[in-house]
Amino acid sequence: MIKSRVDLTAIQLEALKKLVDGRVSTNDSVLDQHGKDESAIPPVKPSAVVTVHDAQEISNVLKYCNQEGIPVVAFGAGSSLEGHVLPLFGGISLDVTEMNKIIEIRPDDLLVRVQPGVHRVELNEKLSAHGLFFSVDPGANATLGGMAATGAAGTTTVRYGSMRENVLALTAVLADGTIIKTGRETRKLSAGYDLTRLLVGSEGTLAIITELTLRVYGIPEKMAAAIVRFPNLADGVNAATAIVRSGIAIARCEFLDEKCIKNVNAHDGLNLQEKPTLFFEFHGSPQGVQEDAQSVKDIVGEFNGSDFEWTADESARRKLWQARHNAYWAGIAANPGMRAVSTDAAVPLSKLSTAVTCADQILSKSKFSYSILGHVADANFHCFILTDPNNPSELPEIRKLTHEITQQIIEMGGTCTGEHGIGSGKIEALIEETGAPAVEIMRQIKKTLDPNNILNPGKVLKI
Amino acid sequence: MIKSRVDLTAIQLEALKKLVDGRVSTNDSVLDQHGKDESAIPPVKPSAVVTVHDAQEISNVLKYCNQEGIPVVAFGAGSSLEGHVLPLFGGISLDVTEMNKIIEIRPDDLLVRVQPGVHRVELNEKLSAHGLFFSVDPGANATLGGMAATGAAGTTTVRYGSMRENVLALTAVLADGTIIKTGRETRKLSAGYDLTRLLVGSEGTLAIITELTLRVYGIPEKMAAAIVRFPNLADGVNAATAIVRSGIAIARCEFLDEKCIKNVNAHDGLNLQEKPTLFFEFHGSPQGVQEDAQSVKDIVGEFNGSDFEWTADESARRKLWQARHNAYWAGIAANPGMRAVSTDAAVPLSKLSTAVTCADQILSKSKFSYSILGHVADANFHCFILTDPNNPSELPEIRKLTHEITQQIIEMGGTCTGEHGIGSGKIEALIEETGAPAVEIMRQIKKTLDPNNILNPGKVLKI
Repeated sequence: MIKSRVDLTAIQLEALKKLVDGRVSTNDSVLDQHGKDESAIPPVKPSAVVTVHDAQEISNVLKYCNQEGIPVVAFGAGSSLEGHVLPLFGGISLDVTEMNKIIEIRPDDLLVRVQPGVHRVELNEKLSAHGLFFSVDPGANATLGGMAATGAAGTTTVRYGSMRENVLALTAVLADGTIIKTGRETRKLSAGYDLTRLLVGSEGTLAIITELTLRVYGIPEKMAAAIVRFPNLADGVNAATAIVRSGIAIARCEFLDEKCIKNVNAHDGLNLQEKPTLFFEFHGSPQGVQEDAQSVKDIVGEFNGSDFEWTADESARRKLWQARHNAYWAGIAANPGMRAVSTDAAVPLSKLSTAVTCADQILSKSKFSYSILGHVADANFHCFILTDPNNPSELPEIRKLTHEITQQIIEMGGTCTGEHGIGSGKIEALIEETGAPAVEIMRQIKKTLDPNNILNPGKVLKI
Repeated sequence: MIKSRVDLTAIQLEALKKLVDGRVSTNDSVLDQHGKDESAIPPVKPSAVVTVHDAQEISNVLKYCNQEGIPVVAFGAGSSLEGHVLPLFGGISLDVTEMNKIIEIRPDDLLVRVQPGVHRVELNEKLSAHGLFFSVDPGANATLGGMAATGAAGTTTVRYGSMRENVLALTAVLADGTIIKTGRETRKLSAGYDLTRLLVGSEGTLAIITELTLRVYGIPEKMAAAIVRFPNLADGVNAATAIVRSGIAIARCEFLDEKCIKNVNAHDGLNLQEKPTLFFEFHGSPQGVQEDAQSVKDIVGEFNGSDFEWTADESARRKLWQARHNAYWAGIAANPGMRAVSTDAAVPLSKLSTAVTCADQILSKSKFSYSILGHVADANFHCFILTDPNNPSELPEIRKLTHEITQQIIEMGGTCTGEHGIGSGKIEALIEETGAPAVEIMRQIKKTLDPNNILNPGKVLKI
């Protein structure tokens, strides 16, 4: 059982090199690059980086690491916001970025098979030639393997679901090197326990994903976007939940507060009014899109929304959503040298306005700069809190604040994480919201599948 | 470990009576009623029927049964098509039908909390007063607990998903009596392993569900149905997959062959032409429904579909779908004294026509009467094969035929079960399609959660 940092011996490094044609690095800059992600959690270097090319190599590496008690953390884009790729107990960072092949695109089956190192944006570029797109869109240009491992979601989840709904099948390697296939290439499946959905969102603690079969969609005939401003945060949020309740099939519905708007204006050269704002996107037939937009316009009016600004122009639409995707980096760019902590609460629909207001009030009393944005149609929002990485005492202070918010969210029936995952920072919150008996079952499953705790130790659960 | 039939001793019956205020029956007709479902699998009586009223009682009963090695099979509506409720190893049938309370309807959160014994139709009657509906619709008036346990789906899955997408949270009791809560009341959740989706579809082998939080939808402003006939089976099926690929958001799309149509005509007093037929349903705004219907009409024309028969009349629409729901019983009613075996294959979209034709060819060479129907927009179809329960040699013959079909389906990348589950009849097929290593992981999870194998032994896996 891994309890403290593991550094590889020369013999272990040699043994690993033999398993992967020499693709093992202990170069300091390579270790650095694999020791951090987009979170504010301080970096931790792996002992070595092992670059793998296929499932069999991963199987051989895991078998060896399992025997030797070497921790293994998979690495893709490094875009996690919860420190998932940080090798908290040393060992190896298993780099899957060279497993970046789109294996097959099957338009007639509306599915695609990819290796885990394929990036979301590149996949969509290839799919567009077939009139298709992959819907899950967390903003960052993450790898599909990482997105599956963390159960990613994003701006389009309200319409198309998260990774849980869009991963049809997986190939994965267990801690002991066993290669398993889960799921089928079908839209419906009722054959045995749902191992696919057990692995999706397991944050690299149960298996390493080596191939994914994903559901894709035809690009809608028409896509259009709209922007609406609100006098205050509560009106904006309440408008979003009213739209969801109305049943209008919006494709995206995102809230950005005035500080977010200010940051994206600066970062993406836009000139939006600095007010609480909803960004919408509509997908469908030209007539359907028109009709949905009109219904949304009627509803936002009831919540003091103004200036329904409509764009059916493709490049303007893309620019708008690119700005939304850049909101995280725009916030950092506006504050050079700073890092950000992003909360990830989700609540029942009717509690969204109370939850956002509660978070706003708690943070407004603190010394930290923050902004609020989120996937409000799913009642999931992020507080983006700035921290100075050179002042390590700030992080525990911020954790105290976010924990205070989380406790209120849990009281409302909500969760500490709608899409970012538990990582290492929310292990206690998971127990608080789910209850010890269910977490104990998770722990038993972990012990059954990874008895030596080599897979991403220190994440999701305390073992 | 349970290896052979368990009959309760007088001491055990008395002990159980003390745990449930005397609600233990060994009355022969009660045992009979709990020993069969809608499948053709020969009945097996439980040793006793224990009626439970809450999670704590279930916990106490399971704790006792776990100590004593008594098998436990939950019983709701008994509408399984795969023998799920049959107590193959005796023991107790745990009747949850008196746990039939709708705990709360929360329109503002678009969710409802129910006990497991609530029936689907009754739930929808109550929800309609709030302008809401629960979408999963397997035809039978099943209980929600049973539907979750088997991961039910149905006619509306193409639009609204199956139980996997619509169960937000569960309370469940494990074999040792531990009560766990999984999931949250949120639309998105990324907190730890997805135990909700592990239990949904686990067919009563991992836990007994005692409460469900379900996602519900607003009743669409407009609902309309349409019927289209085709010269042959392949044209009808190909039209359905073309519609799915077009991205039209159909709410239902069901295929019935000429024999099915004949049966429902007789059973429900309809007068439909006896031809391969697609039933459609459209949900949305009046204009959106009109537009979707026009797009469908254009597509079916390309596949020789004729007589696009439109009904926006509410009672005619209901009558049509009632007939579709009754197709199973209509098939039995047309052949008094007979029982039916229903296959449940699902394939990748592009293989549907090949798969249906292949099943048709294999069955047409046999001596058995059959018809074909299905949720073709999900590439999931059923062969409804008649068998005489007084001729027990027929069942193995039919199993041989269905196994032949299943093997071809698996070759196509498909599954032996899109929505009915594994039960006791497809244990080998599960291994064939998923592979031994993944099934071994299922077995390990089963052993971890239910080490004495008291929960529905003989289903899903060989232990």
